[in-house]
Amino acid sequence: MALTKELTDKPFQLFPFSYFCDKFTVAKSTLSEDVQTVRNGLAAYDLGIIETVAGASGGVRFIPYHTAKSDNQFLGELCERLNSPDRVLPGGMIYMNDLILNPQIVSRLGEIIMQRSIELKPQYIMTVETKGIPLGLSAAKAFNIPMVMARKEARITEGPAVSISYLSGSTKKIQSMSLPKKALPHGARVLVIDDFMRAGGTANGLCELAEEVGAEVVGVYLFIAAKEPAKKLVREYASLLTLRGVDETSKAVDIVPEML
Amino acid sequence: MALTKELTDKPFQLFPFSYFCDKFTVAKSTLSEDVQTVRNGLAAYDLGIIETVAGASGGVRFIPYHTAKSDNQFLGELCERLNSPDRVLPGGMIYMNDLILNPQIVSRLGEIIMQRSIELKPQYIMTVETKGIPLGLSAAKAFNIPMVMARKEARITEGPAVSISYLSGSTKKIQSMSLPKKALPHGARVLVIDDFMRAGGTANGLCELAEEVGAEVVGVYLFIAAKEPAKKLVREYASLLTLRGVDETSKAVDIVPEML
Repeated sequence: MALTKELTDKPFQLFPFSYFCDKFTVAKSTLSEDVQTVRNGLAAYDLGIIETVAGASGGVRFIPYHTAKSDNQFLGELCERLNSPDRVLPGGMIYMNDLILNPQIVSRLGEIIMQRSIELKPQYIMTVETKGIPLGLSAAKAFNIPMVMARKEARITEGPAVSISYLSGSTKKIQSMSLPKKALPHGARVLVIDDFMRAGGTANGLCELAEEVGAEVVGVYLFIAAKEPAKKLVREYASLLTLRGVDETSKAVDIVPEML
Repeated sequence: MALTKELTDKPFQLFPFSYFCDKFTVAKSTLSEDVQTVRNGLAAYDLGIIETVAGASGGVRFIPYHTAKSDNQFLGELCERLNSPDRVLPGGMIYMNDLILNPQIVSRLGEIIMQRSIELKPQYIMTVETKGIPLGLSAAKAFNIPMVMARKEARITEGPAVSISYLSGSTKKIQSMSLPKKALPHGARVLVIDDFMRAGGTANGLCELAEEVGAEVVGVYLFIAAKEPAKKLVREYASLLTLRGVDETSKAVDIVPEML
Protein backbone atom coordinates (compact mmCIF):
# COMPACT_ATOMS: atom_id res chain seq x y z
CA MET A 1 0.00 0.00 0.00
CA ALA A 2 2.76 2.37 1.01
CA LEU A 3 4.63 1.18 -2.09
CA THR A 4 1.69 2.14 -4.34
CA LYS A 5 1.29 5.56 -2.74
CA GLU A 6 4.98 6.45 -2.89
CA LEU A 7 5.32 5.36 -6.50
CA THR A 8 2.13 7.06 -7.71
CA ASP A 9 2.85 10.30 -5.83
CA LYS A 10 6.11 10.72 -7.70
CA PRO A 11 5.52 9.71 -11.32
CA PHE A 12 8.63 8.99 -13.41
CA GLN A 13 10.88 9.03 -10.38
CA LEU A 14 13.10 5.96 -10.46
CA PHE A 15 13.25 4.45 -6.97
CA PRO A 16 16.19 2.06 -6.51
CA PHE A 17 15.10 -1.36 -5.26
CA SER A 18 17.33 -0.82 -2.25
CA TYR A 19 15.27 2.25 -1.25
CA PHE A 20 12.15 0.15 -0.71
CA CYS A 21 14.04 -2.87 0.65
CA ASP A 22 15.54 -0.66 3.35
CA LYS A 23 12.35 1.26 4.04
CA PHE A 24 10.12 -1.79 4.32
CA THR A 25 12.90 -4.10 5.58
CA VAL A 26 12.12 -6.80 3.03
CA ALA A 27 14.31 -8.93 0.76
CA LYS A 28 14.59 -7.99 -2.91
CA SER A 29 12.71 -11.13 -3.95
CA THR A 30 9.75 -10.18 -1.74
CA LEU A 31 9.83 -6.63 -3.06
CA SER A 32 9.80 -7.94 -6.66
CA GLU A 33 6.65 -9.90 -5.90
CA ASP A 34 5.06 -6.84 -4.31
CA VAL A 35 5.96 -4.72 -7.33
CA GLN A 36 4.38 -7.33 -9.58
CA THR A 37 1.19 -7.23 -7.49
CA VAL A 38 1.05 -3.43 -7.65
CA ARG A 39 1.68 -3.54 -11.41
CA ASN A 40 -1.16 -5.99 -12.03
CA GLY A 41 -3.56 -4.17 -9.74
CA LEU A 42 -2.99 -0.77 -11.35
CA ALA A 43 -3.03 -2.13 -14.90
CA ALA A 44 -6.24 -4.09 -14.34
CA TYR A 45 -8.12 -0.90 -13.51
CA ASP A 46 -6.44 1.43 -16.03
CA LEU A 47 -4.73 3.48 -13.34
CA GLY A 48 -1.18 3.48 -14.64
CA ILE A 49 1.96 1.51 -15.42
CA ILE A 50 4.80 0.28 -13.22
CA GLU A 51 8.13 0.07 -15.04
CA THR A 52 11.13 -1.79 -13.72
CA VAL A 53 14.58 -0.84 -14.91
CA ALA A 54 17.26 -3.53 -14.60
CA GLY A 55 20.92 -3.06 -13.68
CA ALA A 56 22.97 -1.42 -10.98
CA SER A 57 21.34 1.98 -11.50
CA GLY A 58 17.94 0.35 -11.96
CA GLY A 59 14.78 0.46 -9.93
CA VAL A 60 11.09 0.90 -10.27
CA ARG A 61 8.89 3.81 -11.36
CA PHE A 62 5.25 4.70 -11.96
CA ILE A 63 3.82 6.30 -15.11
CA PRO A 64 0.24 7.64 -14.84
CA TYR A 65 -1.13 5.95 -17.92
CA HIS A 66 -4.74 5.57 -19.00
CA THR A 67 -6.00 3.72 -22.07
CA ALA A 68 -6.72 5.84 -25.16
CA LYS A 69 -10.34 4.74 -24.87
CA SER A 70 -10.75 6.08 -21.36
CA ASP A 71 -8.94 9.35 -22.25
CA ASN A 72 -11.16 9.81 -25.31
CA GLN A 73 -14.24 9.27 -23.20
CA PHE A 74 -13.06 11.76 -20.58
CA LEU A 75 -12.41 14.42 -23.25
CA GLY A 76 -15.75 13.67 -24.93
CA GLU A 77 -17.65 14.23 -21.70
CA LEU A 78 -15.76 17.47 -21.13
CA CYS A 79 -16.81 18.68 -24.60
CA GLU A 80 -20.44 17.98 -23.76
CA ARG A 81 -20.11 20.25 -20.76
CA LEU A 82 -18.25 22.93 -22.76
CA ASN A 83 -20.84 22.91 -25.55
CA SER A 84 -23.57 24.11 -23.18
CA PRO A 85 -25.20 27.33 -24.51
CA ASP A 86 -25.00 29.09 -21.13
CA ARG A 87 -21.21 29.17 -21.44
CA VAL A 88 -21.22 31.55 -24.42
CA LEU A 89 -20.02 35.04 -23.53
CA PRO A 90 -19.98 38.26 -25.59
CA GLY A 91 -17.40 38.11 -28.38
CA GLY A 92 -17.92 34.37 -28.78
CA MET A 93 -15.75 33.57 -25.77
CA ILE A 94 -16.55 30.50 -23.68
CA TYR A 95 -16.66 30.39 -19.88
CA MET A 96 -14.52 27.49 -18.70
CA ASN A 97 -12.97 28.59 -15.40
CA ASP A 98 -15.08 26.09 -13.44
CA LEU A 99 -13.48 23.27 -15.43
CA ILE A 100 -9.84 24.36 -15.64
CA LEU A 101 -9.80 25.30 -11.95
CA ASN A 102 -11.27 21.98 -10.83
CA PRO A 103 -8.34 19.99 -9.43
CA GLN A 104 -9.68 16.57 -10.44
CA ILE A 105 -10.37 17.64 -14.03
CA VAL A 106 -7.17 19.57 -14.55
CA SER A 107 -5.06 16.76 -13.03
CA ARG A 108 -6.46 14.31 -15.56
CA LEU A 109 -5.90 16.79 -18.41
CA GLY A 110 -2.28 17.15 -17.32
CA GLU A 111 -1.89 13.37 -17.36
CA ILE A 112 -3.36 13.12 -20.86
CA ILE A 113 -1.00 15.80 -22.17
CA MET A 114 1.91 13.95 -20.54
CA GLN A 115 0.86 10.67 -22.07
CA ARG A 116 0.42 12.13 -25.54
CA SER A 117 3.73 13.98 -25.53
CA ILE A 118 5.84 11.56 -23.53
CA GLU A 119 8.25 10.95 -26.42
CA LEU A 120 9.19 14.65 -26.44
CA LYS A 121 11.01 14.08 -23.13
CA PRO A 122 10.57 17.62 -21.78
CA GLN A 123 12.61 18.75 -18.77
CA TYR A 124 10.46 21.83 -18.06
CA ILE A 125 6.87 22.91 -18.60
CA MET A 126 6.52 26.57 -19.61
CA THR A 127 3.31 28.58 -19.49
CA VAL A 128 2.17 32.19 -19.27
CA GLU A 129 -0.02 33.79 -16.64
CA THR A 130 -2.89 33.36 -15.85
CA LYS A 131 -5.18 30.66 -17.14
CA GLY A 132 -2.43 28.36 -18.40
CA ILE A 133 -1.06 27.89 -14.87
CA PRO A 134 -3.38 25.16 -13.50
CA LEU A 135 -2.99 23.02 -16.64
CA GLY A 136 0.76 23.66 -16.81
CA LEU A 137 1.21 22.68 -13.16
CA SER A 138 -0.83 19.51 -13.67
CA ALA A 139 1.26 18.48 -16.67
CA ALA A 140 4.41 19.27 -14.68
CA LYS A 141 3.12 17.05 -11.88
CA ALA A 142 2.34 14.20 -14.29
CA PHE A 143 5.86 14.41 -15.79
CA ASN A 144 7.33 15.16 -12.34
CA ILE A 145 9.32 18.10 -13.74
CA PRO A 146 9.39 21.81 -12.76
CA MET A 147 7.26 24.53 -14.32
CA VAL A 148 8.34 28.01 -15.34
CA MET A 149 5.98 30.89 -15.88
CA ALA A 150 6.20 33.90 -18.19
CA ARG A 151 4.61 37.15 -17.02
CA LYS A 152 2.84 39.81 -19.04
CA GLU A 153 5.25 42.30 -17.48
CA ALA A 154 8.53 41.86 -15.60
CA ARG A 155 8.13 41.77 -11.81
CA ILE A 156 10.52 43.02 -9.22
CA THR A 157 9.93 39.82 -7.20
CA GLU A 158 11.39 37.68 -9.94
CA GLY A 159 14.73 39.34 -10.50
CA PRO A 160 16.51 39.97 -13.80
CA ALA A 161 14.27 38.98 -16.70
CA VAL A 162 14.37 38.59 -20.45
CA SER A 163 11.51 40.31 -22.27
CA ILE A 164 10.15 40.06 -25.79
CA SER A 165 7.46 41.87 -27.73
CA TYR A 166 5.01 39.88 -29.79
CA LEU A 167 2.03 40.47 -32.01
CA SER A 168 -1.16 39.00 -30.62
CA GLY A 169 -2.51 36.97 -33.53
CA SER A 170 -6.16 37.77 -32.96
CA THR A 171 -6.13 41.33 -31.66
CA LYS A 172 -3.12 42.45 -33.72
CA LYS A 173 -1.83 44.34 -30.71
CA ILE A 174 1.82 44.48 -29.71
CA GLN A 175 2.22 42.89 -26.27
CA SER A 176 5.17 41.96 -24.14
CA MET A 177 6.08 38.95 -22.06
CA SER A 178 8.99 38.26 -19.74
CA LEU A 179 10.70 35.35 -18.06
CA PRO A 180 13.14 35.44 -15.10
CA LYS A 181 16.66 34.82 -16.40
CA LYS A 182 17.34 32.08 -13.90
CA ALA A 183 14.12 30.18 -14.67
CA LEU A 184 15.49 27.95 -17.45
CA PRO A 185 18.98 26.49 -17.82
CA HIS A 186 20.68 26.70 -21.21
CA GLY A 187 19.68 23.85 -23.52
CA ALA A 188 16.71 22.73 -21.40
CA ARG A 189 13.97 20.83 -23.27
CA VAL A 190 10.76 22.81 -22.83
CA LEU A 191 7.13 21.88 -23.45
CA VAL A 192 4.96 25.00 -23.86
CA ILE A 193 1.42 24.73 -22.48
CA ASP A 194 -1.50 27.17 -22.57
CA ASP A 195 -5.26 27.01 -22.10
CA PHE A 196 -6.42 28.41 -25.44
CA MET A 197 -4.99 29.30 -28.85
CA ARG A 198 -6.61 31.17 -31.69
CA ALA A 199 -3.95 32.46 -34.08
CA GLY A 200 -1.00 31.37 -31.95
CA GLY A 201 0.54 34.77 -31.17
CA THR A 202 0.95 34.03 -27.47
CA ALA A 203 2.22 30.48 -28.05
CA ASN A 204 4.71 31.80 -30.56
CA GLY A 205 5.80 34.47 -28.10
CA LEU A 206 6.41 31.80 -25.46
CA CYS A 207 8.56 29.84 -27.93
CA GLU A 208 10.60 32.94 -28.78
CA LEU A 209 11.05 33.73 -25.11
CA ALA A 210 12.26 30.20 -24.34
CA GLU A 211 14.71 30.33 -27.24
CA GLU A 212 15.86 33.78 -26.15
CA VAL A 213 17.14 32.30 -22.87
CA GLY A 214 18.81 29.42 -24.75
CA ALA A 215 16.24 26.68 -24.13
CA GLU A 216 14.89 24.28 -26.74
CA VAL A 217 11.13 24.14 -27.36
CA VAL A 218 10.21 20.50 -27.97
CA GLY A 219 6.46 21.03 -28.32
CA VAL A 220 3.42 23.25 -27.87
CA TYR A 221 0.29 21.78 -26.25
CA LEU A 222 -3.04 23.54 -25.78
CA PHE A 223 -6.17 22.65 -23.88
CA ILE A 224 -8.33 24.09 -26.71
CA ALA A 225 -7.16 25.26 -30.14
CA ALA A 226 -9.54 27.11 -32.47
CA LYS A 227 -9.84 25.64 -35.96
CA GLU A 228 -9.85 29.15 -37.47
CA PRO A 229 -7.62 30.77 -38.55
CA ALA A 230 -6.17 27.64 -40.14
CA LYS A 231 -2.80 29.35 -40.50
CA LYS A 232 -1.23 29.64 -37.07
CA LEU A 233 1.80 31.61 -35.97
CA VAL A 234 3.38 28.46 -34.49
CA ARG A 235 4.71 25.80 -36.83
CA GLU A 236 3.63 22.79 -34.85
CA TYR A 237 1.22 22.27 -31.98
CA ALA A 238 -1.24 19.80 -30.55
CA SER A 239 -4.40 20.30 -28.51
CA LEU A 240 -6.70 18.16 -26.39
CA LEU A 241 -9.83 19.81 -27.84
CA THR A 242 -10.64 21.75 -31.00
CA LEU A 243 -13.08 24.66 -31.17
CA ARG A 244 -14.71 24.26 -34.57
CA GLY A 245 -17.06 27.18 -34.13
CA VAL A 246 -19.20 29.27 -31.85
CA ASP A 247 -22.34 31.21 -32.84
CA GLU A 248 -22.96 34.10 -30.52
CA THR A 249 -26.59 34.55 -31.63
CA SER A 250 -27.80 30.96 -31.34
CA LYS A 251 -25.28 30.25 -28.55
CA ALA A 252 -24.21 27.09 -30.35
CA VAL A 253 -20.71 25.91 -29.41
CA ASP A 254 -18.91 23.20 -31.32
CA ILE A 255 -15.93 21.84 -29.39
CA VAL A 256 -14.71 18.33 -30.21
CA PRO A 257 -12.12 16.09 -28.56
CA GLU A 258 -8.89 15.12 -30.29
CA MET A 259 -9.26 11.35 -30.19
CA LEU A 260 -6.35 8.95 -30.12
CA MET B 1 -3.26 -1.60 -5.22
CA ALA B 2 -6.08 -0.21 -7.33
CA LEU B 3 -7.92 0.49 -4.08
CA THR B 4 -5.00 2.55 -2.75
CA LYS B 5 -4.64 4.52 -5.97
CA GLU B 6 -8.35 5.32 -6.32
CA LEU B 7 -8.69 6.41 -2.70
CA THR B 8 -5.52 8.51 -2.65
CA ASP B 9 -6.30 10.17 -6.01
CA LYS B 10 -9.56 11.54 -4.66
CA PRO B 11 -8.97 12.69 -1.09
CA PHE B 12 -12.07 13.22 1.08
CA GLN B 13 -14.32 11.55 -1.48
CA LEU B 14 -16.50 9.00 0.30
CA PHE B 15 -16.60 5.80 -1.77
CA PRO B 16 -19.52 3.53 -0.82
CA PHE B 17 -18.38 -0.02 0.01
CA SER B 18 -20.63 -1.24 -2.78
CA TYR B 19 -18.59 0.77 -5.32
CA PHE B 20 -15.43 -1.23 -4.62
CA CYS B 21 -17.29 -4.52 -4.06
CA ASP B 22 -18.81 -4.19 -7.53
CA LYS B 23 -15.63 -2.93 -9.17
CA PHE B 24 -13.35 -5.60 -7.75
CA THR B 25 -16.11 -8.25 -7.49
CA VAL B 26 -15.31 -9.07 -3.87
CA ALA B 27 -17.50 -9.62 -0.81
CA LYS B 28 -17.79 -6.83 1.73
CA SER B 29 -15.88 -8.85 4.33
CA THR B 30 -12.93 -9.24 1.95
CA LEU B 31 -13.05 -5.54 1.09
CA SER B 32 -13.02 -4.64 4.80
CA GLU B 33 -9.85 -6.67 5.24
CA ASP B 34 -8.28 -4.98 2.22
CA VAL B 35 -9.21 -1.56 3.57
CA GLN B 36 -7.60 -2.47 6.88
CA THR B 37 -4.42 -3.52 5.08
CA VAL B 38 -4.32 -0.25 3.11
CA ARG B 39 -4.95 1.73 6.30
CA ASN B 40 -2.09 0.07 8.16
CA GLY B 41 0.27 0.35 5.21
CA LEU B 42 -0.32 4.08 4.69
CA ALA B 43 -0.28 4.88 8.40
CA ALA B 44 2.95 2.98 9.00
CA TYR B 45 4.79 5.22 6.54
CA ASP B 46 3.07 8.53 7.39
CA LEU B 47 1.35 8.74 4.00
CA GLY B 48 -2.21 9.41 5.10
CA ILE B 49 -5.30 8.16 6.86
CA ILE B 50 -8.13 5.89 5.70
CA GLU B 51 -11.47 6.68 7.37
CA THR B 52 -14.43 4.36 7.31
CA VAL B 53 -17.92 5.76 7.78
CA ALA B 54 -20.54 3.30 9.03
CA GLY B 55 -24.19 3.13 8.03
CA ALA B 56 -26.27 2.99 4.87
CA SER B 57 -24.69 6.12 3.40
CA GLY B 58 -21.28 5.08 4.68
CA GLY B 59 -18.10 4.08 2.92
CA VAL B 60 -14.40 4.72 2.93
CA ARG B 61 -12.25 7.76 2.22
CA PHE B 62 -8.64 8.89 2.22
CA ILE B 63 -7.24 11.97 3.94
CA PRO B 64 -3.69 12.99 2.98
CA TYR B 65 -2.33 13.28 6.47
CA HIS B 66 1.29 13.61 7.59
CA THR B 67 2.55 13.79 11.15
CA ALA B 68 3.24 17.25 12.55
CA LYS B 69 6.87 16.20 12.91
CA SER B 70 7.28 15.39 9.25
CA ASP B 71 5.45 18.61 8.18
CA ASN B 72 7.66 20.68 10.50
CA GLN B 73 10.74 19.09 9.03
CA PHE B 74 9.56 19.72 5.47
CA LEU B 75 8.88 23.40 6.22
CA GLY B 76 12.20 23.73 8.05
CA GLU B 77 14.11 22.42 5.03
CA LEU B 78 12.20 24.80 2.77
CA CYS B 79 13.23 27.72 5.00
CA GLU B 80 16.87 26.71 4.69
CA ARG B 81 16.53 26.97 0.92
CA LEU B 82 14.64 30.29 1.13
CA ASN B 83 17.20 31.81 3.46
CA SER B 84 19.92 31.54 0.83
CA PRO B 85 21.52 34.98 0.14
CA ASP B 86 21.31 34.56 -3.65
CA ARG B 87 17.52 34.79 -3.45
CA VAL B 88 17.51 38.41 -2.27
CA LEU B 89 16.28 40.82 -4.93
CA PRO B 90 16.20 44.64 -4.99
CA GLY B 91 13.61 46.02 -2.56
CA GLY B 92 14.16 43.14 -0.18
CA MET B 93 12.01 40.79 -2.24
CA ILE B 94 12.85 37.08 -2.29
CA TYR B 95 12.96 34.90 -5.39
CA MET B 96 10.86 31.80 -4.78
CA ASN B 97 9.32 30.88 -8.14
CA ASP B 98 11.45 27.75 -8.42
CA LEU B 99 9.89 26.48 -5.18
CA ILE B 100 6.24 27.47 -5.60
CA LEU B 101 6.20 26.20 -9.20
CA ASN B 102 7.71 22.84 -8.30
CA PRO B 103 4.79 20.39 -8.37
CA GLN B 104 6.15 18.11 -5.63
CA ILE B 105 6.84 20.97 -3.23
CA VAL B 106 3.61 22.85 -3.85
CA SER B 107 1.54 19.65 -3.57
CA ARG B 108 2.95 19.02 -0.13
CA LEU B 109 2.36 22.65 0.91
CA GLY B 110 -1.26 22.31 -0.20
CA GLU B 111 -1.61 19.17 1.92
CA ILE B 112 -0.14 20.91 4.97
CA ILE B 113 -2.55 23.85 4.59
CA MET B 114 -5.43 21.38 4.25
CA GLN B 115 -4.37 19.50 7.34
CA ARG B 116 -3.92 22.64 9.43
CA SER B 117 -7.27 24.15 8.41
CA ILE B 118 -9.36 21.01 8.08
CA GLU B 119 -11.76 22.05 10.84
CA LEU B 120 -12.73 25.15 8.81
CA LYS B 121 -14.56 22.85 6.37
CA PRO B 122 -14.13 25.05 3.29
CA GLN B 123 -16.17 24.32 0.15
CA TYR B 124 -14.04 26.52 -2.14
CA ILE B 125 -10.47 27.73 -2.30
CA MET B 126 -10.14 31.35 -3.47
CA THR B 127 -6.95 32.98 -4.67
CA VAL B 128 -5.83 35.88 -6.84
CA GLU B 129 -3.65 35.79 -9.92
CA THR B 130 -0.80 35.03 -10.36
CA LYS B 131 1.50 33.50 -7.81
CA GLY B 132 -1.23 32.25 -5.48
CA ILE B 133 -2.57 29.91 -8.16
CA PRO B 134 -0.22 26.90 -7.80
CA LEU B 135 -0.61 26.84 -4.01
CA GLY B 136 -4.37 27.42 -4.22
CA LEU B 137 -4.78 24.60 -6.71
CA SER B 138 -2.72 22.25 -4.54
CA ALA B 139 -4.80 23.02 -1.46
CA ALA B 140 -7.97 22.55 -3.55
CA LYS B 141 -6.64 19.18 -4.67
CA ALA B 142 -5.84 18.14 -1.09
CA PHE B 143 -9.37 19.10 0.04
CA ASN B 144 -10.84 17.81 -3.24
CA ILE B 145 -12.86 21.02 -3.68
CA PRO B 146 -12.95 23.57 -6.56
CA MET B 147 -10.85 26.72 -6.74
CA VAL B 148 -11.96 30.18 -7.83
CA MET B 149 -9.64 32.91 -8.96
CA ALA B 150 -9.89 36.68 -8.68
CA ARG B 151 -8.33 38.76 -11.45
CA LYS B 152 -6.58 42.10 -11.23
CA GLU B 153 -9.00 43.32 -13.92
CA ALA B 154 -12.29 41.88 -15.22
CA ARG B 155 -11.87 39.70 -18.33
CA ILE B 156 -14.27 39.29 -21.19
CA THR B 157 -13.64 35.52 -21.12
CA GLU B 158 -15.08 35.24 -17.65
CA GLY B 159 -18.47 36.91 -18.09
CA PRO B 160 -20.25 39.23 -15.66
CA ALA B 161 -18.01 40.03 -12.73
CA VAL B 162 -18.10 41.76 -9.38
CA SER B 163 -15.28 44.23 -8.80
CA ILE B 164 -13.92 45.96 -5.74
CA SER B 165 -11.25 48.57 -5.12
CA TYR B 166 -8.80 48.06 -2.32
CA LEU B 167 -5.84 49.82 -0.80
CA SER B 168 -2.61 47.87 -1.14
CA GLY B 169 -1.26 47.78 2.40
CA SER B 170 2.40 48.15 1.48
CA THR B 171 2.33 50.43 -1.59
CA LYS B 172 -0.70 52.48 -0.45
CA LYS B 173 -2.00 52.38 -4.02
CA ILE B 174 -5.65 51.90 -4.91
CA GLN B 175 -6.02 48.69 -6.89
CA SER B 176 -8.96 46.70 -8.18
CA MET B 177 -9.82 43.04 -8.25
CA SER B 178 -12.74 41.17 -9.79
CA LEU B 179 -14.41 37.78 -9.60
CA PRO B 180 -16.84 36.19 -12.09
CA LYS B 181 -20.37 36.37 -10.65
CA LYS B 182 -21.00 32.70 -11.23
CA ALA B 183 -17.78 31.58 -9.57
CA LEU B 184 -19.13 31.22 -6.01
CA PRO B 185 -22.62 30.18 -4.90
CA HIS B 186 -24.33 32.22 -2.18
CA GLY B 187 -23.30 31.12 1.32
CA ALA B 188 -20.32 29.06 0.16
CA ARG B 189 -17.58 28.52 2.77
CA VAL B 190 -14.37 29.96 1.30
CA LEU B 191 -10.74 29.56 2.33
CA VAL B 192 -8.60 32.41 0.94
CA ILE B 193 -5.04 31.45 -0.07
CA ASP B 194 -2.14 33.55 -1.34
CA ASP B 195 1.61 33.20 -1.65
CA PHE B 196 2.75 36.22 0.36
CA MET B 197 1.31 38.83 2.70
CA ARG B 198 2.90 41.96 4.04
CA ALA B 199 0.21 44.33 5.35
CA GLY B 200 -2.71 42.21 4.16
CA GLY B 201 -4.29 44.61 1.65
CA THR B 202 -4.68 41.95 -1.03
CA ALA B 203 -5.91 39.31 1.40
CA ASN B 204 -8.42 41.77 2.80
CA GLY B 205 -9.53 42.63 -0.75
CA LEU B 206 -10.11 38.94 -1.46
CA CYS B 207 -12.25 38.64 1.67
CA GLU B 208 -14.31 41.68 0.68
CA LEU B 209 -14.77 40.31 -2.83
CA ALA B 210 -15.95 36.93 -1.52
CA GLU B 211 -18.41 38.62 0.84
CA GLU B 212 -19.58 40.88 -1.97
CA VAL B 213 -20.84 37.82 -3.88
CA GLY B 214 -22.49 36.45 -0.73
CA ALA B 215 -19.89 33.84 0.25
CA GLU B 216 -18.53 33.30 3.75
CA VAL B 217 -14.76 33.56 4.35
CA VAL B 218 -13.82 30.86 6.86
CA GLY B 219 -10.08 31.53 6.85
CA VAL B 220 -7.04 33.17 5.25
CA TYR B 221 -3.90 31.07 4.70
CA LEU B 222 -0.58 32.31 3.32
CA PHE B 223 2.57 30.56 2.23
CA ILE B 224 4.69 33.33 3.79
CA ALA B 225 3.50 36.19 6.01
CA ALA B 226 5.86 39.03 6.93
CA LYS B 227 6.17 39.72 10.64
CA GLU B 228 6.15 43.49 9.98
CA PRO B 229 3.89 45.44 9.99
CA ALA B 230 2.48 43.67 13.05
CA LYS B 231 -0.92 45.27 12.44
CA LYS B 232 -2.48 43.59 9.39
CA LEU B 233 -5.53 44.61 7.39
CA VAL B 234 -7.08 41.15 7.90
CA ARG B 235 -8.40 40.21 11.33
CA GLU B 236 -7.28 36.60 11.33
CA TYR B 237 -4.84 34.63 9.22
CA ALA B 238 -2.37 31.81 9.38
CA SER B 239 0.79 31.13 7.39
CA LEU B 240 3.12 28.21 6.78
CA LEU B 241 6.22 30.40 7.09
CA THR B 242 7.02 33.77 8.66
CA LEU B 243 9.42 36.31 7.20
CA ARG B 244 11.04 37.86 10.23
CA GLY B 245 13.37 40.07 8.27
CA VAL B 246 15.51 40.59 5.21
CA ASP B 247 18.61 42.76 4.93
CA GLU B 248 19.22 43.92 1.41
CA THR B 249 22.82 44.93 2.08
CA SER B 250 24.07 41.80 3.83
CA LYS B 251 21.56 39.65 1.89
CA ALA B 252 20.53 37.99 5.15
CA VAL B 253 17.06 36.45 5.02
CA ASP B 254 15.28 35.22 8.12
CA ILE B 255 12.32 33.01 7.25
CA VAL B 256 11.12 30.52 9.87
CA PRO B 257 8.55 27.71 9.74
CA GLU B 258 5.33 27.83 11.72
CA MET B 259 5.73 24.65 13.73
CA LEU B 260 2.84 22.57 14.99
